[in-house]
Amino acid sequence: MSKKGLFITLEGVEGVGKSTNLQYIHKLLSDELQVPVMVTREPGGTPLAEELRGVLLQPRGEHVNELTELMLMFAARAQHLHERILPSLHQGVWVLCDRFTDATYAYQGSGRGMCVDVIASLEQLVQGEVRPDLTFLLDLPVEVGLARAQARGQMDRFESEQSAFFERVREGYLKRAKCEPDRFVIIDAQPPLEEVQAQIRQALLTRASK
Amino acid sequence: MSKKGLFITLEGVEGVGKSTNLQYIHKLLSDELQVPVMVTREPGGTPLAEELRGVLLQPRGEHVNELTELMLMFAARAQHLHERILPSLHQGVWVLCDRFTDATYAYQGSGRGMCVDVIASLEQLVQGEVRPDLTFLLDLPVEVGLARAQARGQMDRFESEQSAFFERVREGYLKRAKCEPDRFVIIDAQPPLEEVQAQIRQALLTRASK
Repeated sequence: MSKKGLFITLEGVEGVGKSTNLQYIHKLLSDELQVPVMVTREPGGTPLAEELRGVLLQPRGEHVNELTELMLMFAARAQHLHERILPSLHQGVWVLCDRFTDATYAYQGSGRGMCVDVIASLEQLVQGEVRPDLTFLLDLPVEVGLARAQARGQMDRFESEQSAFFERVREGYLKRAKCEPDRFVIIDAQPPLEEVQAQIRQALLTRASK
Repeated sequence: MSKKGLFITLEGVEGVGKSTNLQYIHKLLSDELQVPVMVTREPGGTPLAEELRGVLLQPRGEHVNELTELMLMFAARAQHLHERILPSLHQGVWVLCDRFTDATYAYQGSGRGMCVDVIASLEQLVQGEVRPDLTFLLDLPVEVGLARAQARGQMDRFESEQSAFFERVREGYLKRAKCEPDRFVIIDAQPPLEEVQAQIRQALLTRASK
């Protein structure tokens, strides 16, 4: 079965404006490009995967083993990818996903220091050759993003990490983006929202017309 | 850190009498061999892993992808093994566990038909070289076990499978036991309980004295 829709992901650390810009991209795809779109997120995207999101994000007294966390991410991803994302793409529906495997490399790999080969072997097991077609990386200095995230209120298990953790996550994202310039579009998320969205709009229309 | 306690697992399909015999083995270890024992189960064994057990066993409308199920089993196992089983063994505590990775080979491998190489690669990733020291396989014709399980009342997502599934699981268990005769003790679970427990007692005392 060949893939027909385009698989677009949005990445970035806490507070870069993913939610606002996800809505903007959704509107661009629906209204301007007039393509059918399914908007979803990771971890999550199906009832079972959303349950796992709850398990993953909930702050808890028990120490969560790094391998447990990594395997839970990929368990949720297996469900989401095979039961929802791929069936949508095969039907010609475009998929717009808030975070995907680049986040695993950035958070579990660069952030927590998990071995990249282990992540790559799970990626291969769960995804085979499936990768996003286009990935927007919203980039912002960590202290700016964290201040925004903190202003939103209660922090989950990841948001409660120290800023050095998010520095590593940001660097991990930027390194991946530089290794795959055809797939990634790095968006400077510091300017006013209209300017950020102008960057997104231009990149999306350029890529979608290819 | 070297392992000091013995890691004992109990395996078998639904209704073979695992719970009753787990208690019996626990008593033998505590009272007769007078060793410190931690009794636990899979999936489960820590608060997080027990949450995952709930996710796995709950009957649900959503189709659970086979890879999701497999990865969830190993996610729970990573937490249980690294945060509870191995620390106990290293402290000299014996671990008695109701099901472990042999169940994954039997249920997900033989039962669901998952590729054995995939299971083996996850086993290697999560466990490294750690395997149980001694495994009791309680064996019973499937129809006898299922009748007992059904008499207990409401069935979970696994217990609701057809008997052909459990035939494959049983065969899978027996095949593994035959491949590793030093680790496995096959217990015929059909005779009256006293006879079953006499078999267990003899095997346990023989192995423990080695």
